[in-house]
Amino acid sequence: MSSVTGKNIKLSVFGESHGEAIGCVIDGLPAGIKLDEERIKRDMARRAPGKDLTSTPRLEKDIPHILSGVLNGVTTGAPLAMIIENENVKSSDYENLALVPRPSHSDYPAFVKYGGNNDIRGGGHFSGRLTAPLVFAGAVAKEALRAKGITVGAHIKSIGSVKDDCFDYNNITGQEIEELSLKAFSLLNSEKEIKMREEIEKYRADGNSIGGEIECAAIGVPAGFGGNMFDTVEGRLSQLLFGIPAVKGVEFGLGFGFAEANGADVNDGYEIRNGAVSLLSNNNGGVLGGITSGAPIVLSVAIKPTPSIGREQSSVNLKTLQNEKLIIKGRHDPCIVPRAVPVVEAAVAIGLLDIISE
Amino acid sequence: MSSVTGKNIKLSVFGESHGEAIGCVIDGLPAGIKLDEERIKRDMARRAPGKDLTSTPRLEKDIPHILSGVLNGVTTGAPLAMIIENENVKSSDYENLALVPRPSHSDYPAFVKYGGNNDIRGGGHFSGRLTAPLVFAGAVAKEALRAKGITVGAHIKSIGSVKDDCFDYNNITGQEIEELSLKAFSLLNSEKEIKMREEIEKYRADGNSIGGEIECAAIGVPAGFGGNMFDTVEGRLSQLLFGIPAVKGVEFGLGFGFAEANGADVNDGYEIRNGAVSLLSNNNGGVLGGITSGAPIVLSVAIKPTPSIGREQSSVNLKTLQNEKLIIKGRHDPCIVPRAVPVVEAAVAIGLLDIISE
Amino acid sequence: MSSVTGKNIKLSVFGESHGEAIGCVIDGLPAGIKLDEERIKRDMARRAPGKDLTSTPRLEKDIPHILSGVLNGVTTGAPLAMIIENENVKSSDYENLALVPRPSHSDYPAFVKYGGNNDIRGGGHFSGRLTAPLVFAGAVAKEALRAKGITVGAHIKSIGSVKDDCFDYNNITGQEIEELSLKAFSLLNSEKEIKMREEIEKYRADGNSIGGEIECAAIGVPAGFGGNMFDTVEGRLSQLLFGIPAVKGVEFGLGFGFAEANGADVNDGYEIRNGAVSLLSNNNGGVLGGITSGAPIVLSVAIKPTPSIGREQSSVNLKTLQNEKLIIKGRHDPCIVPRAVPVVEAAVAIGLLDIISE
Amino acid sequence: MSSVTGKNIKLSVFGESHGEAIGCVIDGLPAGIKLDEERIKRDMARRAPGKDLTSTPRLEKDIPHILSGVLNGVTTGAPLAMIIENENVKSSDYENLALVPRPSHSDYPAFVKYGGNNDIRGGGHFSGRLTAPLVFAGAVAKEALRAKGITVGAHIKSIGSVKDDCFDYNNITGQEIEELSLKAFSLLNSEKEIKMREEIEKYRADGNSIGGEIECAAIGVPAGFGGNMFDTVEGRLSQLLFGIPAVKGVEFGLGFGFAEANGADVNDGYEIRNGAVSLLSNNNGGVLGGITSGAPIVLSVAIKPTPSIGREQSSVNLKTLQNEKLIIKGRHDPCIVPRAVPVVEAAVAIGLLDIISE
Repeated sequence: MSSVTGKNIKLSVFGESHGEAIGCVIDGLPAGIKLDEERIKRDMARRAPGKDLTSTPRLEKDIPHILSGVLNGVTTGAPLAMIIENENVKSSDYENLALVPRPSHSDYPAFVKYGGNNDIRGGGHFSGRLTAPLVFAGAVAKEALRAKGITVGAHIKSIGSVKDDCFDYNNITGQEIEELSLKAFSLLNSEKEIKMREEIEKYRADGNSIGGEIECAAIGVPAGFGGNMFDTVEGRLSQLLFGIPAVKGVEFGLGFGFAEANGADVNDGYEIRNGAVSLLSNNNGGVLGGITSGAPIVLSVAIKPTPSIGREQSSVNLKTLQNEKLIIKGRHDPCIVPRAVPVVEAAVAIGLLDIISE
Repeated sequence: MSSVTGKNIKLSVFGESHGEAIGCVIDGLPAGIKLDEERIKRDMARRAPGKDLTSTPRLEKDIPHILSGVLNGVTTGAPLAMIIENENVKSSDYENLALVPRPSHSDYPAFVKYGGNNDIRGGGHFSGRLTAPLVFAGAVAKEALRAKGITVGAHIKSIGSVKDDCFDYNNITGQEIEELSLKAFSLLNSEKEIKMREEIEKYRADGNSIGGEIECAAIGVPAGFGGNMFDTVEGRLSQLLFGIPAVKGVEFGLGFGFAEANGADVNDGYEIRNGAVSLLSNNNGGVLGGITSGAPIVLSVAIKPTPSIGREQSSVNLKTLQNEKLIIKGRHDPCIVPRAVPVVEAAVAIGLLDIISE
Repeated sequence: MSSVTGKNIKLSVFGESHGEAIGCVIDGLPAGIKLDEERIKRDMARRAPGKDLTSTPRLEKDIPHILSGVLNGVTTGAPLAMIIENENVKSSDYENLALVPRPSHSDYPAFVKYGGNNDIRGGGHFSGRLTAPLVFAGAVAKEALRAKGITVGAHIKSIGSVKDDCFDYNNITGQEIEELSLKAFSLLNSEKEIKMREEIEKYRADGNSIGGEIECAAIGVPAGFGGNMFDTVEGRLSQLLFGIPAVKGVEFGLGFGFAEANGADVNDGYEIRNGAVSLLSNNNGGVLGGITSGAPIVLSVAIKPTPSIGREQSSVNLKTLQNEKLIIKGRHDPCIVPRAVPVVEAAVAIGLLDIISE
Repeated sequence: MSSVTGKNIKLSVFGESHGEAIGCVIDGLPAGIKLDEERIKRDMARRAPGKDLTSTPRLEKDIPHILSGVLNGVTTGAPLAMIIENENVKSSDYENLALVPRPSHSDYPAFVKYGGNNDIRGGGHFSGRLTAPLVFAGAVAKEALRAKGITVGAHIKSIGSVKDDCFDYNNITGQEIEELSLKAFSLLNSEKEIKMREEIEKYRADGNSIGGEIECAAIGVPAGFGGNMFDTVEGRLSQLLFGIPAVKGVEFGLGFGFAEANGADVNDGYEIRNGAVSLLSNNNGGVLGGITSGAPIVLSVAIKPTPSIGREQSSVNLKTLQNEKLIIKGRHDPCIVPRAVPVVEAAVAIGLLDIISE
């Protein structure tokens, strides 16, 4: 297993759901970046569970504790290490899962990979809880990007059949992006919140779960970063995005919408605007030939419904090799899309910082 | 720019569309793999242009010439270098494009990145022609995978509004996968070929182009390969898949279909079959928690319509910074989806070989 | 800066001398390795300062605290994170050094690299204290190697003009190697200890410091690991060995002794011994063409005298750009060679584990 | 095996001694570097064999043929691929070596690693001939360094017991470095040439071989590049230097001379010179804490005597597992030190270009 990523910015994420602590080491950060504690805390809070019925009531304090790499609130250039101590852990909820893998979870393949040595309590190193250090690293990366005039923000694109508006290339602004991070339920069109919450509640009440999509944009990335073939902006960001548990699809710009589109309709022409080269449209989501075009980077990810549901499911016992029915105890998010929004932002921010650090 | 990829299998692709030769170096191949020249040639031919009206009439012989790493048809363990000499190059068609970037191509961001030093003739290193060495490397990787009982195959999932059948988890076989590579127009349901060709012809006749989707499967990959976070099978394959020009979306299993799905419907349960753990369904496309589940790996990519179309388009002159209308001369594929099928197989085969070489 | 290394085993070391904690994350460790707490503690103790006059009296407890990746004393396969809390820190000793770089230390180049943002207290991230997590990681790697029958051990080869015996290829045994780690002052010939301590005391009493050499061997590494060109065992181990502060030279087998040697004298012939291929001599130190030969890996490193000495030295003020005389306060090791022995073992163990994990 | 190296500049070297061609791909070169064909040819010629009795009479033309990445003599930013066709190959000389490994060569460990599939003719991929593409890549890297005011040059430090002068920190100039590359027998003190040639001839006439040392310097590297721990200038250059066949030791500045030195004598103090920080001495060879200090980078490597000698040697038959006497036919360099000088320069130039491209 490799929990290390990046060429210039190397991120190492560690910890297990029910271990002593989780955390990360960010290596290669530029020296001299001032960290804004409030903004970091805010992103951590957006990801944290327990805020309402749409998420799991497990209470996490998720207070990031910086051990190195920061002096007087400014990065030193040395590796930034951060830990979050685990609290409020109830291992007993998970004990019966040890040998009966939860459907659509990592339990079975992880059992094969680690020969049964992996810590399965709460998903261990595979737990969604490991996205907390990712959000922290993303919040730090955002500060470094901000110093270069780049803003990253995401919103819930859809939950089940309820859809938010989409980023509008001609009107998208850094301010609009910034404001998304002020909302616990990040939407472009706030009027959709009630319907989305109803959609989630419908599945929750039924012991079920529901999927959705998240759309993310980065504004202010100059043209000319990235590369072709194995160094594309799309490929490098995707490697991080697919690292978020439950992400099963990634698309840039029109993405899968290109499949039924024709060139005359969707080609992004150019014009001179204020003396500089500008794009007339941004169907390619800010990336051409793997390189940034100067237009906003726009991408969407598909989030599968939480596999932990309250119903009886078909599974097997890995020791006896007999079929076995499984009922997962404990409370689980009926929909992780709202909490995954800052995680998507984090993956994009970390990836972009790596890309523009060439 | 980095045209090198991989952890265990390192692939370096080089060349420019109108340069002397293109090629690749594959480093880290296991020694002792017997190469089947016929299968390699067949894959090269599937990608080659000029076969009919659906593709560009530019004639390429695309004969791969192995320089090292193979002795008597068997890999030696040393880097395998291969070149394809470029022939039949008409640079004049492209000369007027030097300073007027083609919409939705890499021209403009590459100009920014390389300060105008890059070879823009025919797209230079960004040309779709660079997928020829990728297909070669993929064909070699397939031989190494075959030696481990793994088969990789892809088909046209859709062109515009015309759709092929999809892989059927309960019935998909290695033989079915194998047969796809015998077809110039790879489909599961051959009856769709006529309609698809009509769809392409409709756009071609109109000086336009059309997009589509390709679905790829790998059968026989054992459970337990890959990893979580930054080492997921999805992320590692995506980095390669987004390296294929025109790919703008990648999804695994249900992919974006998960967005409107609920857990009870799409969770993949387990059962004991022939004494071994099996999945009841494969909505996750063979990957759980970033690790192979033992079920077939199934993924789809979105291909955008060829940006080179026969119509006047809006562009700019990068020297004078004036708006300029552009008409792209020469003949171009109205739809690259059929030729991209073996390229998708190649990306998946190379990535999987890297993943299972841990 | 990059504090991350390795292809299969990725090690990330973090912390600053006077920060809150130092530590490391080891990613890619095989699951199922049983850790022997006693042996790990013993290696930490061998590196720890303050044992006698030959080392700095600063008291470090250096208790490694494992946060993740180990369950019931056995590795889980998830990243192993470890921290050591810093105690007993007297920053005031270092304050006058901020703008007057210590000769032969990293102070000046680090100031240039980090624009003055780096934490210079106690050397910050450049402190020899950062070798504590390295020794920890090495002790863990040794356990993984031991499970494969490989033993790593080192001894003081020389301090100033006093020399220990050298490893004897024909008689070197795993047991001899093991016993080295039981000694605080690791020597093959224990009778040399008194003379070496006298040599150190001579320089200490004079406010001076002295260099030396360390020889390390790994026994039990099978033939066939490593590679040529950029993947040599020598190159991969050297990258780690030069990461140890004060190491300025690395040689394998005869090393620089080859410069005056002739082929007839030093070629390592073969013979069949107990039905297997064996070497008649091991002047190449267990590596041929970059690949392990099956003979013990034997290497030496040169350690420069501690640059922190008690005498007035010529320096400059980085702010006023005036010459300035510098007297370094505090107590410092007059010779770091004895304490560096387990650090060299660690670098070799980590590198070898990475190499044999192909 | 991995013949790919580098973080920013990726070099892939391929080919076998008796295969069709050898060559390399250099990825990540900056666009816009003008290549000086004469200087490249000159470096290739310095490495080429057959000039006189001190080297093997095998005639290689070694004409590098650039396939991509260069347009009108200027780098395009795309991967630069180069091949050299092999000529004048007499495989029969090597046939009897197939199963009887040459002492101190890679034959035996390579046989184990590749299961007998590797091309052993002429050493295959392990041949010293593979240093030709390395020298080419180095010559290209030198051009990129020259554009930044950095000059790299090396000389024979010793052959057997005959020693050249050493670089003098206080007087070393870029011009002195440049002139080394004009000499087929690179020495600082040309009067040593006769004695060195006599030393080589003495061993050649006796069917024997002799080792030596090479010293290399890089002038003009600014302070602040590289990093500590696993990113040191010493470590990164060593990984390349140990990739040169026959290199068995690498040291920086005083190197192993530090072992008997004391801090007061060898610490490198500072002074202000022409308004800038300068070093009073350069015993650390231009690197402090793994980072460049602004002083010239100075390093030495130990070269072992050519293992191919004209005498009967003890070996074994890998098939029959019987002892066997071996006499290596053909002509071989009695001393490869003179020809290795441009190879050492190449390794240093490639490594430095990678390091300063951060």
